[in-house]
Amino acid sequence: MSRLRFDISMSLDGYVAGPNASVDVPLGEGGEQLHEWIFGLASWRDPHGLEGGETGPDDAVIQESLEATGAVLMGRKMFSGGQGPWADDPNRDGWWGDDPPFRKPVFILTHHARETVTYANGTSFTFVTDGIESALEQAREAAAEKDVSIGGGADAAQQYLAAGLVDELELHVVPVLLGGGVRLFDRLGGSPPLLELTRVVDSPTVTHLRYGAIR
Amino acid sequence: MSRLRFDISMSLDGYVAGPNASVDVPLGEGGEQLHEWIFGLASWRDPHGLEGGETGPDDAVIQESLEATGAVLMGRKMFSGGQGPWADDPNRDGWWGDDPPFRKPVFILTHHARETVTYANGTSFTFVTDGIESALEQAREAAAEKDVSIGGGADAAQQYLAAGLVDELELHVVPVLLGGGVRLFDRLGGSPPLLELTRVVDSPTVTHLRYGAIR
Repeated sequence: MSRLRFDISMSLDGYVAGPNASVDVPLGEGGEQLHEWIFGLASWRDPHGLEGGETGPDDAVIQESLEATGAVLMGRKMFSGGQGPWADDPNRDGWWGDDPPFRKPVFILTHHARETVTYANGTSFTFVTDGIESALEQAREAAAEKDVSIGGGADAAQQYLAAGLVDELELHVVPVLLGGGVRLFDRLGGSPPLLELTRVVDSPTVTHLRYGAIR
Repeated sequence: MSRLRFDISMSLDGYVAGPNASVDVPLGEGGEQLHEWIFGLASWRDPHGLEGGETGPDDAVIQESLEATGAVLMGRKMFSGGQGPWADDPNRDGWWGDDPPFRKPVFILTHHARETVTYANGTSFTFVTDGIESALEQAREAAAEKDVSIGGGADAAQQYLAAGLVDELELHVVPVLLGGGVRLFDRLGGSPPLLELTRVVDSPTVTHLRYGAIR
């Protein structure tokens, strides 16, 4: 059965978004620092329609993750645009444009039923209204032999973590202190999973820590 | 001038002690998992009067830190025994016994003036009542060419971090999720320091992440 994994950029003090997020500052104050390391990478630029880019250890981590992923799970706010004024419009097509960078099936956790939307590049958005386990089951079927990845946001990752369903997590730890915002590890409930450190990759700008869950 | 540094064991979700600390569970629920990696090391066993122990990357990190440290800063609760019934007795000699494992001058942040206590092994406890900057100044003088290290607890580290006085921090990230407790990065105030990742050392049980502060 395909594994459930996620990887996410996190500040050293544990935040995946900065404080005081708003329409103008969707990642919160300082939150953009969490993602700067990725924009120059070849593995990020390619699915976003950009040529070139850096290769190296950071790029290899991302490339490997993309290749291993057969389907994506996503929270509804992540899909529809976070803090934007459109975030509460459940019919909005997201902020992903006509060439969404996923190129694989995406399953969105929502309370609002909609028809599946498909794109020429292989991306599809399927809206799942009957809970995180159902979404995972559908994503596993779509992923076949590959992994299912949680594409964000933090609340979706927290729900799967709290339910004990995550097989692997990889944190991209960025050397900044945000001092506030959205913590990744929050609302985990009473019995957090046991973890095993399985890989460390580091570069001057980010440290990739991979953990497996021990059942 | 000698640098101010600290190193501390932290769970992956950012805690340096578990939830519900008490007399019987001084490190909080699950908190002992943060420190298990260190007790078997030769560099830990030696100053605690024990022979033998493991060598390897974890041991080298601790050994290097001990050798670089010329004086120690410590919060009063850390000195006097954390959650114990004695913690509020400012005259208690701490829980360190007759052979405290520091073997160098220790400066304790307190509101209660006391005479300095000295031990045959080179440890001294000096009680500083006029604030963190005064304590740092005294520790720097005692450390001469070596570093000043913050020996804990989290509140002392937080005060020095918030004041922008820390030159280097090294986190020993342990692959556990505690789900609650005392967070290291808390109450940092409005402008946390910029950081630069300067070294990564990893072993199967713990990841040592060293950061320098950029002024």
